[in-house]
Order: sequence, then C-alpha cells, then structure tokens
Amino acid sequence: MSDACVIIIGNEVLSGRTKDANLSFLGERLNEIGVRLLEARVIADDTDTIIENVNDCRARFDYVFTTGGIGPTHDDITSDAVAKAFGLPLIRNPEALALLQQHYSNPEDLNEQRLKMCETPEGATLIDNPISKAPGYQIGNVFVLAGVPVVMRAMFESLKHRLVGGLPMLSITIVAYIGEGVLAGGLGVVQEAHADVEIGSYPFFRDGSLGSALVLRGTDQATLEAAAEAVREMVRGLGVEPFEEANA
Amino acid sequence: MSDACVIIIGNEVLSGRTKDANLSFLGERLNEIGVRLLEARVIADDTDTIIENVNDCRARFDYVFTTGGIGPTHDDITSDAVAKAFGLPLIRNPEALALLQQHYSNPEDLNEQRLKMCETPEGATLIDNPISKAPGYQIGNVFVLAGVPVVMRAMFESLKHRLVGGLPMLSITIVAYIGEGVLAGGLGVVQEAHADVEIGSYPFFRDGSLGSALVLRGTDQATLEAAAEAVREMVRGLGVEPFEEANA
Repeated sequence: MSDACVIIIGNEVLSGRTKDANLSFLGERLNEIGVRLLEARVIADDTDTIIENVNDCRARFDYVFTTGGIGPTHDDITSDAVAKAFGLPLIRNPEALALLQQHYSNPEDLNEQRLKMCETPEGATLIDNPISKAPGYQIGNVFVLAGVPVVMRAMFESLKHRLVGGLPMLSITIVAYIGEGVLAGGLGVVQEAHADVEIGSYPFFRDGSLGSALVLRGTDQATLEAAAEAVREMVRGLGVEPFEEANA
Repeated sequence: MSDACVIIIGNEVLSGRTKDANLSFLGERLNEIGVRLLEARVIADDTDTIIENVNDCRARFDYVFTTGGIGPTHDDITSDAVAKAFGLPLIRNPEALALLQQHYSNPEDLNEQRLKMCETPEGATLIDNPISKAPGYQIGNVFVLAGVPVVMRAMFESLKHRLVGGLPMLSITIVAYIGEGVLAGGLGVVQEAHADVEIGSYPFFRDGSLGSALVLRGTDQATLEAAAEAVREMVRGLGVEPFEEANA
C-alpha cells in the first residue's frame, strides 16, 4: 500500500483564525483509493520552512500534497519554494498561461500578479482546476494544490487517477456508553486476537454522558466483521448494548 | 518571543474520521500570551513515529504540546513513547496514583488499565485535569495533554502560567468583495511599506461572491492600525468599500 503526507501551508491555520478543512477530506479520499495518509504538517508561510518540509517529506512518503500559497498575492510563496526544494528554475508555464489567457478575455485583467499563478517549477505537469482555472501541478511525487477547500477538492478529483493505490481501507465504528477504563482490558484482548485489524478507542462526552467510540479498520471485510463481532460481544459482556455509527 | 509546536497524535484525525478541534484553540491561546505557534504535526499512533517527532520538535522549538494517546486503552502509547524519546524510565507516578485513588473511591474501579493513566516518564511534573482527573504532565519542554478537547483545554489553562511568553500577537481582519488578483499589486506595496506587520490574503467564496480576507498581524497596536488604514485606502481606491471582521 502506498503512503502519503499532507503539508498545509498556512499562517492562518497556525494562528487559529481558520480551521483547516482540507485534511479530513484528503484523509477520507485517500483511504478510499487505498493510499494511507501517514502524516500531516501545518507550517508557516516561510520559504526556508517550505523547502525543508517538502524535501523531508518527499523523501519519506510516496506522495506529498501541499495546500495553500499558490495565489497572486505577495504571501503566495509556495511555487517559488517548491522550485527551490527541487533545485529547478521557476518558469512561466506555457500551458498554464494559455489557460489563464483563455479565462481572462480582457488582456488587462491578466495583470502581473495573476501571471504569478502561471509559475511552476520547470517540468511540472498541471492539475486541472475546473472552479477558478488557475491550475495546480505535480512535480515528482509532490502535488501542489490550492488552499481554498472547494478548489482543492476539485483539483484532487482531477489528479487522483495518477495515484497508484491499493485495497481501500474499510472501517466499522461501534459506540457504547461506557468508559474506556471499563472496556480497556477486554478491548486489548480483542486487539491481540485480531492483529490484522487496527482498533482505536476514542472517548467522548455527549449529552452529559461518557462514552467510547471503537473504530476498527482493515482492508478485508470478513476479517473486519469478525473483529467487530468480538468487540460487540465484549461490550455486551459488560452489560451495555453497543450500537453502530455511520463512518464520517 | 518564544515559539511552539503542536504534535497531534491520532490515527482518527489522519483517517478523516475526526476533525481536530485542538489546533485552533492552542493557536489562539498561545497568541494571546505571546507564544508563536510555528508548526503542527498530525502523526500516527506508532511508537517510533512519536519518538522521532518528539525528539525532532523538542530540539527545534521552545515548547512542544502533544495531544492524544494518554488514556487507558491498548492504543494509548504516548507516555511510553515520550519516556523512550527522553531515554527515561516510565514509572507509575506516585502523585498521579494518589489523584486516581482519590477519584475512584471503590478500589476495584482502579483496574490495571486505568493505572496506566498514572504512568509518566520519571521526573515529570503533573498538569492538573479538573474534568476527568487523570493528569497530563510536563517533561523538559514537552507538555503531554489529552486529546479530548474539553480535557485538553482545561489542561492548557492549568499549565499556561509555566510558559514564558511575550507581547500578545494582535490582528485586524479587513474583508472586501474583490478578487485577490485585483488587489494583489496594491497589497504588495502596502506590505513593503509596513514590514513590521505581517499581511496575509485569503480568498473565499461566500453566497456566490468572491472575496478576500486581509489579515494583519503584529505586536504593536499603533503600527498595526496604520497598516490597516493603508489597506483600507488601497481597497477603496479600487472602488470597493472594505469592512472589518471580528477575529476568531
């Protein structure tokens, strides 16, 4: 199974002003095509920081997705930094230029700042943006995407056929109004007996009651269902009726 | 100004099942006390991964906050990994044990799994948890916190007096229904003239209209206000009336 890392480039996420909406989308969609998202980083809009993280991550993961910093303003420095990370010249990409020339029928509208959105490292392959035209791109195993969620999502749909995935990750979520401390012993026993399934336990407070969400994940439906049945029996053995929750 | 990094330990965030709710809280609260959050990482529940990231981050940032993985179940491996990262033995912390013994008046309820919540690296200083008692802790410059948001927040309030901060980061957000491509040139000029203020531009689609949120950040109110006035004038010069938006 191939793996991936997401690099969210954004001071606005680190300052708490904006809640990132891209990570959960990418995590889910990658799961569906059998690419495992193993790490995500939120980093500052700083050229050296971007270079360091892109180079570290592209060496360690099969696929790297960056989001943010490819617009027309002074703080959009992602493409410059990615080109430097690869040691490639930043060029005005002819194919991207043609797309924007087509989009802005009045040539005056395609000002110097918007032309910045045509810049890619030399040799990049564009990623279609059906929403606002200015494209993303792929260079090596790095996919450079927009930060605006609606645009990022459309770009992901445009590029996903390029990813070599595997078996989709399946999951079952079993919820019970019972504290983790009560079920931890039994759950550990179930986990040991079902090593091919990854079992996570997530406590929550809901409507004043303490509960646990038990999330089982694996690539084989039968194995997963067997482990889920063992979890349900374990919970019933503690005198509580578990129920299923739709996965996100 | 001191800086910080957050390490979110959680397969459930990477799979997209759970949307992280802790990062924006920490970003905002750290800003208020003048500690700059420079990076956040979301990593998998894997011992080697946790060790590597804790050691990398504690060397590079003044403060590191981890969230998640300190409960009683088999997938709660944070304390074990943090102890290994520091090369310290994992002990049953006597002070933490006393807290739990007080909380669980029936000794049978304090089972082996819950006793795991008393484990810390040797020499750790506890962080009070007024919500569910099981404490977090500090070891060196690393603060180990719960993942459940309500508990994490309470722990942060318990520990924040230990942080050496600086001037709070102030911000003004100016919003205008105008595309980034139109204002990018003028905004770059304002940024150059106001180097002590960091100006970020964030495009958005709202009610079918394209707009830009211009976020100014700095530690001096007068400098910040002067830059904001320059941004307002620049936007008005483009024939659009800007308005202020409350910061998150």
